[in-house]
Amino acid sequence: MTAEVRTLIWQDTDGERGPSLVLLDQTRLPIEEEELHCNTVEMVAEAIESLRVRGAPAIGVAAAYGVVIGAWQARSGDDGGIHRAVELAIERLAGTRPTAMNLFWALGHMRAAMAARGACGADEVYVHLLATAHRLCENERELCRRMGEHGAELLRDGDRVLTHCNAGALATVGIGTALGLIYAAAGQGKQLEIYADETRPLLQGARLTAWELARNGLNVTVICDSAAGAVMARQHIDCVIVGADRIAANGDVANKIGTYSLAVLAREHNIPFYVAAPTSTVDLSLASGDLIPIEERSHEEVADGFGQRTTADGAQVFNPAFDVTPNHLVTAIITEHGIGRPPYAPTLRAWGIAAPKVSHA
Amino acid sequence: MTAEVRTLIWQDTDGERGPSLVLLDQTRLPIEEEELHCNTVEMVAEAIESLRVRGAPAIGVAAAYGVVIGAWQARSGDDGGIHRAVELAIERLAGTRPTAMNLFWALGHMRAAMAARGACGADEVYVHLLATAHRLCENERELCRRMGEHGAELLRDGDRVLTHCNAGALATVGIGTALGLIYAAAGQGKQLEIYADETRPLLQGARLTAWELARNGLNVTVICDSAAGAVMARQHIDCVIVGADRIAANGDVANKIGTYSLAVLAREHNIPFYVAAPTSTVDLSLASGDLIPIEERSHEEVADGFGQRTTADGAQVFNPAFDVTPNHLVTAIITEHGIGRPPYAPTLRAWGIAAPKVSHA
Repeated sequence: MTAEVRTLIWQDTDGERGPSLVLLDQTRLPIEEEELHCNTVEMVAEAIESLRVRGAPAIGVAAAYGVVIGAWQARSGDDGGIHRAVELAIERLAGTRPTAMNLFWALGHMRAAMAARGACGADEVYVHLLATAHRLCENERELCRRMGEHGAELLRDGDRVLTHCNAGALATVGIGTALGLIYAAAGQGKQLEIYADETRPLLQGARLTAWELARNGLNVTVICDSAAGAVMARQHIDCVIVGADRIAANGDVANKIGTYSLAVLAREHNIPFYVAAPTSTVDLSLASGDLIPIEERSHEEVADGFGQRTTADGAQVFNPAFDVTPNHLVTAIITEHGIGRPPYAPTLRAWGIAAPKVSHA
Repeated sequence: MTAEVRTLIWQDTDGERGPSLVLLDQTRLPIEEEELHCNTVEMVAEAIESLRVRGAPAIGVAAAYGVVIGAWQARSGDDGGIHRAVELAIERLAGTRPTAMNLFWALGHMRAAMAARGACGADEVYVHLLATAHRLCENERELCRRMGEHGAELLRDGDRVLTHCNAGALATVGIGTALGLIYAAAGQGKQLEIYADETRPLLQGARLTAWELARNGLNVTVICDSAAGAVMARQHIDCVIVGADRIAANGDVANKIGTYSLAVLAREHNIPFYVAAPTSTVDLSLASGDLIPIEERSHEEVADGFGQRTTADGAQVFNPAFDVTPNHLVTAIITEHGIGRPPYAPTLRAWGIAAPKVSHA
């Protein structure tokens, strides 16, 4: 159970194009597995904005490599040029998506890495930034593994698990966050039945979670988001596990729209509701979830999905990409450090989470 | 505010084809307004199965006219032939969809009408069945009007109302059930803001509710089903109004999948949850909602929506078309008799609802 998925791969040289960040274009799944070779900052930024690469941890790593590409693009200029180019790349990438904490966390690391090489020449800056991005990437992979190890104990043989959106290998550079727990438990020989919310409007559950779980031999059933309550009432879901895009200091969780509804339904049915995320998702600078910026995405995602007009003319559309689940509905938060239980504030603080180094205003 | 929509129209003669039931093909909305001329029982049955006509009250009336078409098709045979043909038509139409009570209620009326003309010739049976179908149709239209009159008082000027699926003019032959209350309140000059769940998998909210509300000049905003919780938490929905496909004797309500989740969310946010349905939707023969047969529809509705594969191969799909909301989550049931409050059993009994005349096993 290795959940091998080439979510993103760094290529030091991609023919005449120089180095590339090679992404599995997730907007094309499950219909085709198409690689996208990004060798400009703008291509990486567009890929993040269009959800060709998505999932908070994967966005963070992709952005880090995007900064490296920015440095490469400016390498032939003067030494001041590369610093300006890297700063512009950070600014461009920080503007792609407002909610995912890992984006700002990763860009903060890249900015710090550049500052540490302030007096160096362009080649050295490039090499150092690339090494930093590689380290962030390896780090995220390792965090997934540890989260899985800690969280697998929450799952028993025979459990029926409901998940939302995609918090799997495709959302990270490792085995995933929520799905990482599932892969780890399955690796221990536990038989699990997974229900995947299809996750409108962009269907990350139906397109991505179902794809990677089925590919890894897991038993997965797709349901419409609206069926989660009925499935809980009739089929006895044993637990809900989701990922997170940002966790506030008090344990409030921003995650894909619909997560909050699931948490309310889980509480109604006395079903544990687990959130799995690396500490790079935690934002100690925000006291509560009310302060988390929530991205609103285009109306077309809802009104023109699937290449057809699905919403009547004359109607408005409201399309928030995330919602906030208050901490009192969260049974446990699983990070690379272990399983945190309420109250979350002291636990999150004790986990020694670094403050973000790039603003997300 | 007349909500004029030609959901279904009877044509005594449709050129050489004899009489027809003319349906607005709801699978084509909102892209095009296409009429479907049904002049065989099979065409009517297929239209119901494929949701070209849908909504419990409209299904009932369409099926009644389907029986009339069955009588017409057999009119040239002997007198025994028409009775057999009508019985076959009733059986075929009763097998189309298992949950909507109004289907069995209407077919029960048609069977009783034929029984009352047992000794008559084919022409007379046909005329009598047609008159019965017209009466059921007019009756449903009038029930909508009365429901609207009673229920409008629940809505205040400025209210923000959330609805699910389509319980409007397109679901009935009148102004609708849930939307009938909204049209009636708007007709009294109340300004309302309507949020319409898109209602996966077939998007009746986005395609149909948004279409008819916008056409009638109402302010309507489409949201993904999964956003309802966030909208309640952030935007202060004042009430939820839905229709029903069947209501058990204790007030448990079967309605479009997702209704139960909304009811739980409404309770969490202290928002009134109203169900509007004519008493032809009430099934006093079932003590509770657990006994209501729940239709499961094809996997393709979820996995191949909109002409594209949206679900990964290797994944299963579970696609229940309805769920059951327990009576304790229902603030009031509005019928043509008025506004019923809990406990529902004595009120529903007192409303003198006739027992169904066609089994729905």
